[in-house]
Formats: sequence, C-alpha cells, structure tokens
Amino acid sequence: MRFVGIRRTAGGPVEVAELRGAEGGDEIAVVAELDAFWSDPRSHLARGAVGPSFRRTDVVLVPPVLPSARVFCVGLNYARHHAEGSYSGDPLPEFPTIFARWTSSLGVGDGVVEIPADEDGLDWEGEVVAWVGADLAAASADDALAAVVGYSTFDDITARGAQKRTSQWTLGKNVEGSGPLGPLVPAGEVGDLRDGLRIRTRVNGVTVQDASTDDLIFSVGDTLALISRTVGVRSGDLLATGTPAGVGYARDPRWLLGDGDVVDVEVERLGTLRTTVVRGRPNHSSPPPGPPSPVLNER
Amino acid sequence: MRFVGIRRTAGGPVEVAELRGAEGGDEIAVVAELDAFWSDPRSHLARGAVGPSFRRTDVVLVPPVLPSARVFCVGLNYARHHAEGSYSGDPLPEFPTIFARWTSSLGVGDGVVEIPADEDGLDWEGEVVAWVGADLAAASADDALAAVVGYSTFDDITARGAQKRTSQWTLGKNVEGSGPLGPLVPAGEVGDLRDGLRIRTRVNGVTVQDASTDDLIFSVGDTLALISRTVGVRSGDLLATGTPAGVGYARDPRWLLGDGDVVDVEVERLGTLRTTVVRGRPNHSSPPPGPPSPVLNER
Repeated sequence: MRFVGIRRTAGGPVEVAELRGAEGGDEIAVVAELDAFWSDPRSHLARGAVGPSFRRTDVVLVPPVLPSARVFCVGLNYARHHAEGSYSGDPLPEFPTIFARWTSSLGVGDGVVEIPADEDGLDWEGEVVAWVGADLAAASADDALAAVVGYSTFDDITARGAQKRTSQWTLGKNVEGSGPLGPLVPAGEVGDLRDGLRIRTRVNGVTVQDASTDDLIFSVGDTLALISRTVGVRSGDLLATGTPAGVGYARDPRWLLGDGDVVDVEVERLGTLRTTVVRGRPNHSSPPPGPPSPVLNER
Repeated sequence: MRFVGIRRTAGGPVEVAELRGAEGGDEIAVVAELDAFWSDPRSHLARGAVGPSFRRTDVVLVPPVLPSARVFCVGLNYARHHAEGSYSGDPLPEFPTIFARWTSSLGVGDGVVEIPADEDGLDWEGEVVAWVGADLAAASADDALAAVVGYSTFDDITARGAQKRTSQWTLGKNVEGSGPLGPLVPAGEVGDLRDGLRIRTRVNGVTVQDASTDDLIFSVGDTLALISRTVGVRSGDLLATGTPAGVGYARDPRWLLGDGDVVDVEVERLGTLRTTVVRGRPNHSSPPPGPPSPVLNER
C-alpha cells in the first residue's frame, strides 16, 4: 500500500489518501484529514481508505506532513559517503550528525526545483526517510524503531554553495521544493533497513549512486532514540537517514544538476521518485511562461 | 503596543491579540486569527484589536507563530561573543552562520524549560528576534529590512552537550520550550537595531550579558537578504539575531543553568522575558506533581 497527501481544492485542507493500483495507478481514496491521521497513524494505515475516491489527476498531491513536523536529517551516515566529501579526513563519527529541514522545503514526486540565484547547480542525495508515528521521550532504540510507521523514497537535494559557506548546513538544505518525498509505504511491508534495501540514484538515466541501506552507520532506532533524549520526537516527525556515496560535488570533475536535468531516486520496495531541476527565474515576482511550478507544501 | 498569541480554549485556534496596559497589564484584546494576521500583518498591527477583550488570566499565552514558520537563527553575530567560545581562533566570519529552530521549540515568557536527560544544564543566550511580514526572494537589504514588522525579546536557550556533539548544532538548539519569545513590538516603535538597543541577561538577578545591538556583525536587512537568495523568506518567519558575549559555557569556571535557576532577558523598548529551568523528569510518561508545565507551542 502507498499513502500520499492530497488537496481536493486549492488552499483546501490536506488529507492523507491511499494510492491504488500499481505505481502510477490512477485511483486515489481518502483515509483521513492530516491531523486526524497523525493522531493515530497506525490505525489509519491498517484500516486504509474510508473516504471517497478520486482520479489522481483531479487532486493535487502534497506531502502528508504536518506543518509543525520536524524533519531530522542524518548527514554522513554511509561510510563510503563519509569518505568521499569534505569530512573525509575525520574518523567515522561516534554520533549521528543531525541537521534540520523545515517542512516548507518538502515536495512530492514529478516536481520541479529551481536552482537558487547564487548556486552553480544543485546536488542529488538519494535517501530513505522514516515516518514516526508516536511520541518519544528518552526512548530505547527498540521502542524508537517500533514507533516508525512507514518509509518513503527521498531526495535531499542540496545547494552546496550555501551549505558550505559557513559551519552550519541549514540554508543549503532548505531550498523550497528541494526535499521531494515518495509515497509512504507501511513499515510492515518494508522490513528493517538493516536487512538492506537497494538504493539507486540516476541523473538523466545515468546511475550515480548504487548502495544498500545495510551500510547505514547509525540505524533508525539508534538515531531516533538519541534525538528523543534531547529534543523529543512526535508523531508526524520524519527522519531522513542519509545518502550513500556518489554525490555530485565530491566527483572529479564536480557534477551538479543544471537546467533541465532529471534525477530519479529508486529504492527497493519504496518506488521511484523523479525531480526536474530548472534554472531559477531572475525575478520571482513576475514569473514568465515556462516550466510548471513545483508542487510544494503550501502553508 | 505589544502583541501576543493566545488560545481561548485548550486546543482551540491560536489568535493574535494586543496586550493592553503597562508590562504585566491585565487586559488582552483579539486582533485576528493567526493565519489571517500573517497574511497581512502590517494592516492588522496598524488597526490593532477589533475582537473581544479578556483578562490575561482567562486565556493561555502561546507564541503568535505559524507552525510552518522558519526560525532562522544567526550564530556568532556579536564580535565579543565570537571571541569567547569554540570559534575564537577563527577570523570574523564573512557570512552569517544560520542555524535552524523548529517552531515546536518556541515558548512564551514566564515558562519553564526542562534540562534534557544527557545535559549538565542549559545555557542562556539573550537575543532580539525580528518578525518578517512579507515574502522575500532575492531581496535587497533595504527591502528585507522594510519587511520586518516587529521585534521581540528572545532567549535562545541551548543544550551545549547536544550542540557540540557533532558539527551541526541542531539538537542543542531545539529542546522543547527552549526558545521563549516576548511580545511582538511593532518595528515603528523600535527603530533600527543598528542604532543600539541595550540587551541584558540576568541569572537569579546577576547580570551575565550586557551589550548593545549596535555591535551586531550582520544587520537584520543584510541577513534576511542573504537568506532570501537561497531559501526564500515568507511572512511569519523569524530571524533570531544572535547573542552577545557572556554565555555560560565560555566562562571560567563554566556556568550552566540548573534546577530552579531563573533567567531574565531584558531588551530596551522590548521588555523583559523570564524563564525558569528545571531538572527534567526521569520519566515523561508519568509526570509527578511539581512545577507547572512549560507553555509550549502546541501543534
């Protein structure tokens, strides 16, 4: 089963819905309003759709994410990625490096993301994201893992210029629409990431990342348990588990996504997520005719 | 004039309201619902209250913050603070260091914040926060400054253990309730921070920070302009402008806030913000009788 967020009307409430049929299937059926879903996600996922059905083209897909959710992102969580970039001289980390995305940076598949004004391009980071379905405070790793209700394919698209301008990565990780999420697949259909899901990223059809989630340095349970000791975790929060080796900025020569490039992230059991990169419009206040706007997480 | 967020009933909608009378005044009058306020904050601030009045004790104060707002925080933005801490060996920065708070970390004055499980204590960081009232994309510094509709006293209370465990400060900056905000004071009553507002922090009555906002390295306009070139800025977003010298972890001997300590941040024209620190409960699921819960930004 696959779950997405929808709006039936522009500016209307976000609902969680079930995508029916194979990948690309045409039918969508409502499960619950967003707040109600995250107040008891396990029951809603088990029950599935109870509301009306729509053709996929009659609704707008949005991330099924509470505006107040935290998107906890792990950096440097695959050993070979740690070795390829700016931190290659450091020993393997003792603790997961957690950086923040705001929910306004999220999007959905088949969207468009603009290259910001000061950037030479954007970089891909194929990932798996875990959806947390319970509140956690000073939890054990087992309890934290048990609170995960689903997983999705994710692309942590990054503006390297802004990311590396200072010690903190924040701006480079929060370009609008730069965090597309695939449909949520229930945890019971996915299993444990430590058993290994193949994750691949392709740019214009060329494979640039190919790894397995069994190479993760910090597991989902360990990472959420650590976070829960300081910040607390709430139902609806997300954990982006980090990207494997093969990102663009660490290549020789460097390879960044430019105008018109298409990036696909494919994760076993979770599906493929496509994003198109475009060169930013010089003046956002008067958009010229051109490519469609990205499907963003409106506020 | 001073503006706050209120809930008339538990779980009810957040409204923006005007605090009437002197600091500590007893009357509160409704301005607008939260979404409506941030869709046109300048008009609402100019018009003031149009809704019913309440006694302050009959409502719950909450931050007047959209759940999806970004809280952009500048680190190391006062020269003497840059010189006192972990980055003292580095030259003054060329760009502002921006880190992220999620809105769930925000609170209001007279609240309580718990020391997380793994921390020896918490550290104070008295600050001024700017409220942005318009959308900005690749804006000039002048246009960005003109979009600021108000300022508040802020305390960027920090868990230093989590902040310094890895390169990214995220977890140490997002303890629940660790970002109390004072009332919003309209920008026209405050003037330009570059003209110098005195900012002081006291711990149990002892002055630990005493500086002027004319020592800011990066101005509000320059910083928002820079952010708007990568991430974009939206009405309702906040900019925390950084803390001056005198934080606890950089002292010899180190001084952190422990159980029962009271921290006051006082900013000229913006007022005083009080927070009490308590040692975290060992088990969050069964709170014992004790100090009142912090007033959090519920979701």
